[in-house]
Amino acid sequence: MHGRRQLIVVSNRGPVSFGLDADGNRVARRGGGGLVTALRGLVRHHDVTWIASAMSPEDRAIVSEAGGAAIDETARDGSPYRLRLVAHDPIAYDRYYNVVSNPTLWFIQHYLWRLATAPDVDLGLHTAWYSGYEPVNRAFAAAVVDELDRDPGAAVFFHDYHLYLAPKFVRERRPDALLAHFVHIPWAEVDYWHVLPKHLRRAVHEGLLANDVVGFHTRRWRRNFVRSAEDVVDAEFDGDAGVLRHGARETRVVAHPIAIDPTEFQELRESAAVLEEERALEAARREFLVLRVDRTDPSKNVVRGFRAFGAFLHQYPEFHRRVTMLTLLDPSRQDIPEYSEYLGAIQREVRAVNDRFQEEGWLPIDLQIADNFPQAVAAYKQFDVLLVNAIYDGMNLVAKEAPLVNGRDGVLILSENAGAHEELGEWALTVNPFDVHGQAEAIYRALTLPPEERRRRAAAIREYVETHGVEGWIDAQLVDLDRVPGRAFAAGN
Amino acid sequence: MHGRRQLIVVSNRGPVSFGLDADGNRVARRGGGGLVTALRGLVRHHDVTWIASAMSPEDRAIVSEAGGAAIDETARDGSPYRLRLVAHDPIAYDRYYNVVSNPTLWFIQHYLWRLATAPDVDLGLHTAWYSGYEPVNRAFAAAVVDELDRDPGAAVFFHDYHLYLAPKFVRERRPDALLAHFVHIPWAEVDYWHVLPKHLRRAVHEGLLANDVVGFHTRRWRRNFVRSAEDVVDAEFDGDAGVLRHGARETRVVAHPIAIDPTEFQELRESAAVLEEERALEAARREFLVLRVDRTDPSKNVVRGFRAFGAFLHQYPEFHRRVTMLTLLDPSRQDIPEYSEYLGAIQREVRAVNDRFQEEGWLPIDLQIADNFPQAVAAYKQFDVLLVNAIYDGMNLVAKEAPLVNGRDGVLILSENAGAHEELGEWALTVNPFDVHGQAEAIYRALTLPPEERRRRAAAIREYVETHGVEGWIDAQLVDLDRVPGRAFAAGN
Repeated sequence: MHGRRQLIVVSNRGPVSFGLDADGNRVARRGGGGLVTALRGLVRHHDVTWIASAMSPEDRAIVSEAGGAAIDETARDGSPYRLRLVAHDPIAYDRYYNVVSNPTLWFIQHYLWRLATAPDVDLGLHTAWYSGYEPVNRAFAAAVVDELDRDPGAAVFFHDYHLYLAPKFVRERRPDALLAHFVHIPWAEVDYWHVLPKHLRRAVHEGLLANDVVGFHTRRWRRNFVRSAEDVVDAEFDGDAGVLRHGARETRVVAHPIAIDPTEFQELRESAAVLEEERALEAARREFLVLRVDRTDPSKNVVRGFRAFGAFLHQYPEFHRRVTMLTLLDPSRQDIPEYSEYLGAIQREVRAVNDRFQEEGWLPIDLQIADNFPQAVAAYKQFDVLLVNAIYDGMNLVAKEAPLVNGRDGVLILSENAGAHEELGEWALTVNPFDVHGQAEAIYRALTLPPEERRRRAAAIREYVETHGVEGWIDAQLVDLDRVPGRAFAAGN
Repeated sequence: MHGRRQLIVVSNRGPVSFGLDADGNRVARRGGGGLVTALRGLVRHHDVTWIASAMSPEDRAIVSEAGGAAIDETARDGSPYRLRLVAHDPIAYDRYYNVVSNPTLWFIQHYLWRLATAPDVDLGLHTAWYSGYEPVNRAFAAAVVDELDRDPGAAVFFHDYHLYLAPKFVRERRPDALLAHFVHIPWAEVDYWHVLPKHLRRAVHEGLLANDVVGFHTRRWRRNFVRSAEDVVDAEFDGDAGVLRHGARETRVVAHPIAIDPTEFQELRESAAVLEEERALEAARREFLVLRVDRTDPSKNVVRGFRAFGAFLHQYPEFHRRVTMLTLLDPSRQDIPEYSEYLGAIQREVRAVNDRFQEEGWLPIDLQIADNFPQAVAAYKQFDVLLVNAIYDGMNLVAKEAPLVNGRDGVLILSENAGAHEELGEWALTVNPFDVHGQAEAIYRALTLPPEERRRRAAAIREYVETHGVEGWIDAQLVDLDRVPGRAFAAGN
């Protein structure tokens, strides 16, 4: 569909990080994660330079050895690409990552602040912005400009909320560069952006509008961005063209739902590691398995999920001893107090439900806090009910991965505020994430749905996920680049 | 401007409540409050029947004596009106008022929930809605229908968030009634309305759209309502006509900022009670007085105000001993745990700032928790800086009352999220309510503003408030009624 292109991908976390093995040899650790997986196709078919933060001491050693330049790397499938790691000042990086990006921006974009008392935009946050978020974004921009000097025709793909300022810094120095940005989390409506003082919320919007294309996973987040750009920086929206005009510039605003690679999961499904985990799950399982798989993030709504399960057990005692709620949580961002506290709230709620309902030999909730992907895939195969009740979520890939590999016509319970709901809502049982009572009823309904109804819904989701793979998501973004007016984005050799 | 009209005013709290004096005689206690004051002009010039909840045991006795019918009352200025008190079941009223209206709706419309863990839309909230909010709204609607039977040509004015469902209940029984609703608090954007499950947020919007006119204090809240009506119930907005179309109905959506009665405050200013309080304040005051006057409501942002004052004292030690922050707080809604906890947070923060900065003979923050209106007016006259830093606020009348009577060219520091900011922002020092650092700087700037600059700003606000009195707000609403198509709203005899 598209020729080979020159692309510069910019994301905070790169596709690989380096460490030392037991013998002190440098080894590459290829990360998982939806974004890196999704972008694998780019690396396969195009000439990619990937710019990311140096995370580990070995990453920093590489930066130092390479004098800051890119190194040659190979992806898991053997495709070559260039990797440019940027080594930030550790204090600046901490402010950028652990103060501004998380929790400040993340909590704004998921509506999570308890505004009566938090956040405080105090000297600490101002310092974190100007001595953290801004300089780290400048460092990314400088690396981009450097790579553009090497290959002026390359297109730049920025990713996510860590990098809102970088596009403008690049634009100031390279007015003709072709820049696109994809935001992987929800976009909050304008009132909630008022958590940031005017000059900061303006900077966020001006940064994004320095791109030629800005993408979101859903029409809903796109709509919110259009409205907030109108309100915060007086951008004008041309609905027919799908572009926001701001100053002399035009920015196309698009919605492309991210997807998974179905082949990858169909292979994983049969891998030795997954089969081993599955045998353990199968041996331990009760008649019914309710599953949730998440990071320990307040946006995921883990606590209310347990309350709903407790309300279900209270309402329907006939399910006691017959059902387990398996909860696999990947610990997340434990350097941030809001996250540590949320993990505490999770543990407290599990104990409350288990203390109330447990019987000899039966623990209603099985909570496992670990990063164990084979176990998660094994559980995907085994669930009867998958609970995805996120408060807000840009997409939620679990809602796509798990039904794809599930072998029991499991029912998906899906939050109306998860991005995936725009695609999968009609085949899921929709819940409101705040409605604990509604979630309890949905669990009951899911467990008692007639088999043919479960089969119909599960098959529809599976077919959708199989036929809407990640290649389409990437292609849509390349098409967007071709549509940027006056830009001859040359397909290379 | 308008002839005498037949009006039915509906609000949860009425203009008067009854009690017993020391001798056991029934006495009327006329309430203050912005709404009741604002509507006084209606009673003076029109034939008003006011429907409100019976609050006290004596109110309930009156309902019982009158068999639920209206009684004849006279306003403070001697104007006659009819008062119809509705006696609700106490448990239903508690659910309606202390669970659904506050905190649920109030917290949604001021963006106050800590969504990671609250609210829970559990069986308790469902019960509160269906056995509290809905039946109380039905009882109000029944009283309205009864009064419309007596006077079918009367126009009905609903007020505020307690009564979102009542207009639809009236409309179902009296399709041709002329109904208007004024919302006195902010209108949240649609994502935040998702805190309510779909059927409940639909009920809120359908209830309001059963009116012929819906009013807000600012263009911003009006815009939010237009957008949420489009998104929640697929209403269509005709921007030229200023109407939302939903089903077969049209609802005009308007923005009219509520105002105060300047004459009332110019009289109050010289009243004996105020002068006595002022002497006490004058005797105790330091060189500079920073003032805040609020209810102890989380939306008012009292805690961050103290943090900002602390940050100011830290940054500018030259003001130590020369300035006091007088804080007059009216205790509010202490039946609701979120409010009790907020009062605790207020007290804790005052102690933290005072413990840190106090010196022999000087307490930086003087906190008084009481309902003492003469003292508030006296403080209005004495302030050098008035801090109104509300998180969100429908209007905030303190920002209009206090500068009107102030005698020291005091500076208004005003939150960008207070409704009053649309009118007074250009003469105030604007602050972002979350920006503690910015508020500390604003206090410093206010205290060091050149005298001619302070005078210019203070005079402009005073003139605006004097020339934009409450009569204009009422007139605008009567004009709206005349514009309802096909409605001959007859001016009476």
